[in-house]
This record gives sequence, structure tokens and C-alpha cells, in this order.
Amino acid sequence: MSDLQRALKACADRTDATLDGLLPLTDTPEARVIEAMRYASLGAGKRIRPFLVVECAKLFGVSETRAYRAGSALEMVHCYSLVHDDLPAMDDDDMRRGQPTTHKKFDEATAILAGDALLTKAFEVLAAPETHENASIRAELCLQLARAAGDKGMVGGQMLDLAAADTDLDIPEITRLQRMKTGALIAVACDMGAIMGKASHHSRQALNHYAHDIGLAFQIADDLLDVEGDAEEVGKRTGKDEDAGKATFVSLLGVERAREQAHLLADQAAEHLEIFAEKGQLLKDLAEFIVTRRK
Amino acid sequence: MSDLQRALKACADRTDATLDGLLPLTDTPEARVIEAMRYASLGAGKRIRPFLVVECAKLFGVSETRAYRAGSALEMVHCYSLVHDDLPAMDDDDMRRGQPTTHKKFDEATAILAGDALLTKAFEVLAAPETHENASIRAELCLQLARAAGDKGMVGGQMLDLAAADTDLDIPEITRLQRMKTGALIAVACDMGAIMGKASHHSRQALNHYAHDIGLAFQIADDLLDVEGDAEEVGKRTGKDEDAGKATFVSLLGVERAREQAHLLADQAAEHLEIFAEKGQLLKDLAEFIVTRRK
Repeated sequence: MSDLQRALKACADRTDATLDGLLPLTDTPEARVIEAMRYASLGAGKRIRPFLVVECAKLFGVSETRAYRAGSALEMVHCYSLVHDDLPAMDDDDMRRGQPTTHKKFDEATAILAGDALLTKAFEVLAAPETHENASIRAELCLQLARAAGDKGMVGGQMLDLAAADTDLDIPEITRLQRMKTGALIAVACDMGAIMGKASHHSRQALNHYAHDIGLAFQIADDLLDVEGDAEEVGKRTGKDEDAGKATFVSLLGVERAREQAHLLADQAAEHLEIFAEKGQLLKDLAEFIVTRRK
Repeated sequence: MSDLQRALKACADRTDATLDGLLPLTDTPEARVIEAMRYASLGAGKRIRPFLVVECAKLFGVSETRAYRAGSALEMVHCYSLVHDDLPAMDDDDMRRGQPTTHKKFDEATAILAGDALLTKAFEVLAAPETHENASIRAELCLQLARAAGDKGMVGGQMLDLAAADTDLDIPEITRLQRMKTGALIAVACDMGAIMGKASHHSRQALNHYAHDIGLAFQIADDLLDVEGDAEEVGKRTGKDEDAGKATFVSLLGVERAREQAHLLADQAAEHLEIFAEKGQLLKDLAEFIVTRRK
């Protein structure tokens, strides 16, 4: 096991424990929605976004307890987006991470509400004094997460993605779509670490460039897995993009050039971290991991 | 036209103008989701929640521009909840305020995303420095809105409401459901005004009691309209609760006792405002209006 794998595993465990604490089950009659929130967020996922929050925060000496609260809030937003994305009216997926999707396990109404509640809870967590004693930082975390997750970010990207089946997107258009749909949350992950650490403008910019590059690399790797991956190994249906007639980096560039591009982006991402010297090693390793992962 | 009617009209106009400014249309390809956000939030509704924010804030001398930003953020949350509540998987309603519901006007996927984006935008607005120069107040606004809108508040109440068709709720259970489903946002409306105005504990408590009483009165009045109202006048389908076999205050208490109870609550609400003397007059009038409105 490499240092990165150990660190990712530790982050996944601690994110899970943090989420578990933030989403306590109750014995009230509305507990079904909490059960669905827990089902949608606990026990699975690579937790790359919390890892980015925590590792970036660590560059500036932020306490792990706080960083994990912020990382878990961000993960709630990621998980809510998957729940809504999987709904019959959206991508209509039955399986996610090798398990039934939330609306399959519960029902559509509960899945819609659980997604809504996860998104709401994310802001509750960020705005609470336990996340940071400095209210300016809490407000800034809320502001940047909302910008990244909303109509100018993730949700806007999902809207573009829905329309993509009917249009032939070119590379700049797909790049814009992916920067919004998946890139925005990855970028804000790094930014949240920088905000909590009161990073200098220079450091915050470096992390922003890093995030931009790994975000795109991550998406190209995802497209490659959709084409080449095995559904059982990947944990969700593959071949979706081709079936939907969606243009992707892979369909436009071809497998080989897409893979090259992903590696190029990962290398470039690592270079942006030079200013942090050896403190940035795990983040550099993550860039490499993102383009070589098998699921 | 009474003072209250004039004030409500002015509030509705200014809320509309504020929302219009906060949700500018773009010519980007994802504009469809912004169109749906605007469709779901502009031009209709009594704007009772923004009115409560603004009037409560006014008790403490808060600037109207700021109060309207906060009130409009809260209204976005209310509007998102209506969009998701109307979806086929939830209440499956085709009409709202005399117009096709958002998923009928657009499509289900766009309605889900527009709801998500409205909820997200609410926190973006509250967390932005334009809403208040004091970051503690911005963070507190985000925190209290999230608590009111999430699984312990509005969304939890919606979960209870979905389950209500299958169970015979009694008065305490219905009271709890309604306190969560509609009461929580009404209570946080008043609280947001108090937060912005740095109200004393005593004033904040008085507004909290007022909000509690009008929230319940509002719901009983809604139940009465569902039984007695005309669909055309009310602007949405009536007789829904009876069709769904749902217990309501009216089905449990009967029309006459429900009406008495609503008026009792409105009077009680007004009494909590005595400490504000004549400055609380419009809020007192609102309590009366809530139980006498025809839609």
C-alpha cells in the first residue's frame, strides 16, 4: 500500500465517521428521510473531495477536526447530486457504487427529499461555529460552496449534460460542461482548504490551477472507464455515454489521445504544487492516482 | 385598500424586483435552468415570508435593501420546496398559483435541477457581503435557514406529510407535522429579521412566539381553503387532502372549531407583539389577514 492509498483509506474512514456523527438516526416518524440521507452518503465512495479539502487545509496548518467537517459538508453536496442525478427523470440509474440507487432502495419521493436535505445540511454544517471560530471564514465557505454547486456550477453543468444528448458538443463545449458539472466541486474542495487556512492569494491561486487540471483529468479518466471499464469493477453501469449518444473527451479524441491528455493534465497539476515543496506530495500523488484508477 | 394590503403589495413588488436582480437571465446554453428558476419564483405568491423578514427587520431599524435580500433568499427556499413538492413522485400537481407547475411548463429533470439551484442560491445570497457587513450575522442567517429548511424542519415535515396518507394522525401529530412543514420557514422568517437587527433575547423570543402562532393559524386557514375554497379562486387544486385521505385540522376538529382555533391563534399572535407597541401594527394585521384570506 502506497502512502497515498493509506491516506485515502484514512480519509474515507474519518469522513464516514464524521458524516455518521453529523447525520444521527432518530426515532422520530420522519426518520425515513434521515435513513435515506445516510444510505446515500455513508460507507462508499472514494471521498476524493474531502481528501482535497483536508490535504489543502493541512498545507496551512488547519485542524483536522475542522477540515473534516468542511470536507464532509462538501461530500454531502456531492452525494445529493448523485441521488438526484440517478432519478428516473434524470439519468435513470438503478445501481451506484455496486448498490441500488437511493430511489430504488427507498422510493422516488424519499430520494428527492433526502437529496434536498443533504444539500441543506451541508450549509448547516459549514455555518456552524464548530466548523471554524471565525465567522468570516464560515460565511466564505458557504458562499463559495453555493457558487460551485449552483446554476453557475454543478447544477448548470447537469443542465448542459441533459441537453448534450441532443447536440454535438465540441471540445471547448465539453470542457466547459465538465468544468461546471464535476470541476466546480473539485475546485471548491481545494478552495475550502485554502479559505480555512487563510492562504495567501498566491497559494490559493496555485491550488486553483491544480484543481482545474485534476478536475478535467478526473473527468477524462471517468470517460475512459465508461468506455473500457467493467460494470462490476466500476460499480455502476458502463457504456452509458455511448448509449446516450453523448460526445465525450474519448469519443472526440479517441482512447489514446484522451489518455495522453489525462496524463498531461495530471503532470501539469503536480507542477502547480511546487511552491508547497514536500508538503504537497500526497496531492501530487493524487493527481497521478486520478488518471490511473480502475474505478 | 388597507395599510396591510398596500404594504403586502409593495413587498410583493420589491421581492419580485429583488429576485429578478438575483436571478439574471444569461445567453449561456444552460440558461434553461435559470429560466425555470425564474418561472418558479417570479411574479406570483403572496410573499408572506419576505414580508415577515422585512417587517421584523424593520422593528430593529435594518436597511430595507438588506432585509429584501434575506427575504428573497428565504422565498427561493419556499419556491424550491413548491417545485419539488409538485413533482409527479411527490404531490403530482399540474397547477400552482393558476399556472402550470414548473415540471409541466418545462420537464421533470429541469424542475428538479431548478429546485436544487434555487435552494443553493438562497445560501449564496445570504452568505454574500451585500446581505450584511457583519459576517457573524451572515453565518447565523445561513445556519438558521438551513436548520429550518432541512430534515429537522421543512423537509422532515414533507416526509411526514407523505407518510400521512397511510396513518391516522391525531392533533399533536398534525401539529408537529405542520410546525415542521410550514411553520419552520415562517418561524425562521421572523428570526432572520431579528438576527439582522441584533434583537435582544426578549424581542427575539416574542417574535418566535408570534411566528409559532401565525404558522399554525396559516396552516389551519390553508386546510379550510382546501375544503371550502374554489380551485379557480385559490389557484390550485382543492379538496386534495380529503382525496388523499389525509387527516387535517379541519377533518379532526370540524370546520367551525378549526376556524375558531385559527382566530384564537391569530389573536394570541398579536398579543406577543405588544412589546413593540405601534411599530408591530402591520405584523398584527398580518395575523388577522392570514386567517381571513380567500386564497
